[in-house]
Amino acid sequence: MSELTIWTYDWVPEGARGFVRDLRLRWACEEARLPYAVQTVPFDGRETNHLARQPFGQVPFLSDGDLEIFESGAGLLHLSRKSDRLMPRDPVGEATTQQWMIAALNSIEMVTVPWWFLKISGDEDNALAGWMGQRLDQLEERLRDREWLVADRFTAADLLMADVLRVSAVRSFGDRPATEAYVTRATSRPAFEKARADQLAHFAAADEKRADNGSD
Amino acid sequence: MSELTIWTYDWVPEGARGFVRDLRLRWACEEARLPYAVQTVPFDGRETNHLARQPFGQVPFLSDGDLEIFESGAGLLHLSRKSDRLMPRDPVGEATTQQWMIAALNSIEMVTVPWWFLKISGDEDNALAGWMGQRLDQLEERLRDREWLVADRFTAADLLMADVLRVSAVRSFGDRPATEAYVTRATSRPAFEKARADQLAHFAAADEKRADNGSD
Repeated sequence: MSELTIWTYDWVPEGARGFVRDLRLRWACEEARLPYAVQTVPFDGRETNHLARQPFGQVPFLSDGDLEIFESGAGLLHLSRKSDRLMPRDPVGEATTQQWMIAALNSIEMVTVPWWFLKISGDEDNALAGWMGQRLDQLEERLRDREWLVADRFTAADLLMADVLRVSAVRSFGDRPATEAYVTRATSRPAFEKARADQLAHFAAADEKRADNGSD
Repeated sequence: MSELTIWTYDWVPEGARGFVRDLRLRWACEEARLPYAVQTVPFDGRETNHLARQPFGQVPFLSDGDLEIFESGAGLLHLSRKSDRLMPRDPVGEATTQQWMIAALNSIEMVTVPWWFLKISGDEDNALAGWMGQRLDQLEERLRDREWLVADRFTAADLLMADVLRVSAVRSFGDRPATEAYVTRATSRPAFEKARADQLAHFAAADEKRADNGSD
């Protein structure tokens, strides 16, 4: 019996589908074989509607019995303690997994997301491009001789790092074969494929409901 | 007997002093009353010198017996499990502390650091200013009626959030009285003051050593 519930939006525009961060939690639950439900909050009015549950108006959040946790990274830390499929149980494996999870959030994504923000804002001369190239080169170096970031096995650190890196604009920024192979390896996992297909189906069903309402 | 060692640079330029992130780990150890040593790696050549220990050429890293952990956020997660002065022991307190630690790293600092990067690059029309203002406003709202982020007491989440927010350019970006009072409250703690004074003394001593070497 599961009490795990992943909260996401009821609908998002097409461009966001496949990338809403509930996917990180779905993927983790699929890897760990933890049963979970999915529930929604409205996309419209998100800036004010659920601030009591997520102070930045975002999704996902995760509920687990009495606990409710926002920030996908924090949800992943919580899920990782439930299954050694996500994080090894020995102290070194645990510390190293957490270290690379934080690196994904605070050393890589801290550059890629603002870089992408400038890019879609139409900034021709993207002032973050140099910094991003340097970080991605350093990561490429690290990935050159290993399959996964921690202990020769897939962990939640790979889940998070691959999710940060798989954004197509980031993926096509320069030529980094080890990183490209790593992202392909991670996103070829059945658990990722199921999580992504489920998210796409969730939002496609929302489209149908919207269309039904519109034709009433 | 402690085996905790915080690794930082042997020297940094004056403008960075008081803000090198070993301060986060020093502060945490002071709050938790955990004994620790400080050791150094060279600042010169940092991009290549210690990549095996920190793949982005940065500091700090933390060693604890056989463990070595880079990323200040990961070091803080590790230290938080050693002391309930940093993280409450109950499941809700623990999850909420981790959640706000990740929020500091991935929702606030993910905007403030790139914003600051653009600012010092001389970008007049800082394209990240709107996003930063929105996030800081949302945080201000959350801080309006509470002293600390978690469970009415200081935790590692406040340590991290206040460290992100105390950067003077961020602090003077708009007028947010609850946030300002929060940063003042956190940085008035004796543990912060000691950590900061110790970091300043560490780098001042390095200056003297450089001057001695120069006069040989």
